[in-house]
Amino acid sequence: MREALALAQEGRYSTHPNPRVGAILLRDGRELGRGAHLQAGGPHAEVLALREAGESARGATLYVTLEPCSHHGRTPPCSDALIAAGVRRVVVAMADPNPLVAGQGIARLRAAGIEVDLPCLEEEAAWLNRGFIQRMRTGRPWIRIKQASSLDGKIALANDQSQWLTGVLAREDVQQERAQASAILVGVGTVLADDPRLAPRLESAPLRYPVKIVLDGHLRTPPTAALLRSPGRTWIVHRDDADGASGPALVAAGARLVALPPASSGVGVDFTALMQFLAAEEVNELMVEAGGRLSSSLLDAGMVDEYLLYFAPLLLGRDARAFAEPGPFTELGQIPRWRLRESQVLGQDVKLRYLCQQEA
Amino acid sequence: MREALALAQEGRYSTHPNPRVGAILLRDGRELGRGAHLQAGGPHAEVLALREAGESARGATLYVTLEPCSHHGRTPPCSDALIAAGVRRVVVAMADPNPLVAGQGIARLRAAGIEVDLPCLEEEAAWLNRGFIQRMRTGRPWIRIKQASSLDGKIALANDQSQWLTGVLAREDVQQERAQASAILVGVGTVLADDPRLAPRLESAPLRYPVKIVLDGHLRTPPTAALLRSPGRTWIVHRDDADGASGPALVAAGARLVALPPASSGVGVDFTALMQFLAAEEVNELMVEAGGRLSSSLLDAGMVDEYLLYFAPLLLGRDARAFAEPGPFTELGQIPRWRLRESQVLGQDVKLRYLCQQEA
Repeated sequence: MREALALAQEGRYSTHPNPRVGAILLRDGRELGRGAHLQAGGPHAEVLALREAGESARGATLYVTLEPCSHHGRTPPCSDALIAAGVRRVVVAMADPNPLVAGQGIARLRAAGIEVDLPCLEEEAAWLNRGFIQRMRTGRPWIRIKQASSLDGKIALANDQSQWLTGVLAREDVQQERAQASAILVGVGTVLADDPRLAPRLESAPLRYPVKIVLDGHLRTPPTAALLRSPGRTWIVHRDDADGASGPALVAAGARLVALPPASSGVGVDFTALMQFLAAEEVNELMVEAGGRLSSSLLDAGMVDEYLLYFAPLLLGRDARAFAEPGPFTELGQIPRWRLRESQVLGQDVKLRYLCQQEA
Repeated sequence: MREALALAQEGRYSTHPNPRVGAILLRDGRELGRGAHLQAGGPHAEVLALREAGESARGATLYVTLEPCSHHGRTPPCSDALIAAGVRRVVVAMADPNPLVAGQGIARLRAAGIEVDLPCLEEEAAWLNRGFIQRMRTGRPWIRIKQASSLDGKIALANDQSQWLTGVLAREDVQQERAQASAILVGVGTVLADDPRLAPRLESAPLRYPVKIVLDGHLRTPPTAALLRSPGRTWIVHRDDADGASGPALVAAGARLVALPPASSGVGVDFTALMQFLAAEEVNELMVEAGGRLSSSLLDAGMVDEYLLYFAPLLLGRDARAFAEPGPFTELGQIPRWRLRESQVLGQDVKLRYLCQQEA
């Protein structure tokens, strides 16, 4: 199953909106075929493994990182293919939370006399598809905030100077993190201050680029913004009461405009409506490259699943801008404690990944 | 030499004000004797190795982590002992920066016909004795700030709640760090707010306890403070213009009072005078368990050599108290960049150790 999970990783940049899945077909310890799902509409991992095995699949055991599908999506159901191929046993890392599957794939296999065992390395399998699972279970994307910070929690000086806090290894790592997201969200303040491209730069061009989303209540994004010219689609999310004067120029520059109701606080758009919209658009993992205001709002709304911090080796000091200011809190006990998931030294910088939601 | 350095580590809690030194005596790859200096006034590492080797030391090679001494201190010079024992060759990790030695030990050995090679693993040897070396070279202690912080750089809520940010593993690690310091410095604010013991708690009682120092400009330390009853000496450093009313009670409680001139800023005592006093008292490594004001002042004065941060997995958020606020800065380029020396996961916390001074 470990090897099937490693195979599934091959799709980490490209399977959105589908889950990442790997499959290996074995008999008597000998590998007969393997497959990784790479792109929506392309063949599923199970089918690739069966194709490679051909007739030898009869009587074999399949290791697969997610329950085989039972429904006709863009491709026919994998459970039927496994039955037709005469597979004897299927080991499944975890059930598919997709309500269109949700145990029906397993039931179908068992009804056909195939032995099905699960779960197996479920935690690792769930981590790989945390975005897909979150969307299926809760109707919103998995929300990851990513920020580069000084050790005293600052992202910019009072005069907004902020470029190159972290070194080249950390910045390259961010490209990988971006490429794995379904979409990247920034506030219009970041667009106006830094004019980022947002499209990940990788050594070889990815099969798919994340959608670039600007949270821009009053449509202040300039039609000349760099992100409108970089690879991948651009969505500009604005309040439905915004003055739409710049709308046509943004559309002409390739953007899709998305009108949403204003937040009840009066600032920006309503986050719940935004997340429902993103889930409807099949966004699994949303990476938020936030300034301090956006991250604070998401934290206060309880909408942060994962926090990715790159700490640079300096203090920005007095009056500098904080990466987040949730609260204020008056009791230590009321403050959520995160779970450390990853710690990595990248040159002089330190990458820390936290899970922010308490276990259900 | 690696093994001699590991031996030297045995003295990490106890050699102050002396350096930590290890020595191994070898001939034809066979170990004849070994020694670690453990306590000032006790035998030096070289002498212990010679004692163990006895007559067999003749013609042997000594690996030692610091230049053998040439002066009569509390014990006779090691270089003479090595000459008398007939050692053939001495490999030295680094020269002794002590002006009483400073190459004279090596010169003495060479004059007696002994082959002397150095440096060897000098960086590791210098790290082990960074306090001693700093004091010898610059006339002030090596200054290490230690703080436990939230990820957003805060040490307490606005209402001063701050207990138990970090978990048990991090807190145990702090005991080790404390025990290695010559002295531990806190501001009187910490004494009044937390009433710490400051004496390290280790599994077995150390040979020596760090001196506990309270920076207390106006002698506000209560004579009932816990640190006056915990193991180790207590020094209370106050301004020479302080109202001395509580002085006799503090002295009766066991404290030594140290009067120093006020800082030119008017707040607290003069740091330069403080550091000169500590160096004269043979303090090698000073561990500062600082609040935000003290750490900021030391940073702004360029008096921080090492920064030890324990990051707990939470954000204290808006209005919470920062661990340091140096500056303000107006140019990113003018901000000193530190060097990451150590990164360690301790349960859910992350320990990061930085070197703060640019290389000379």
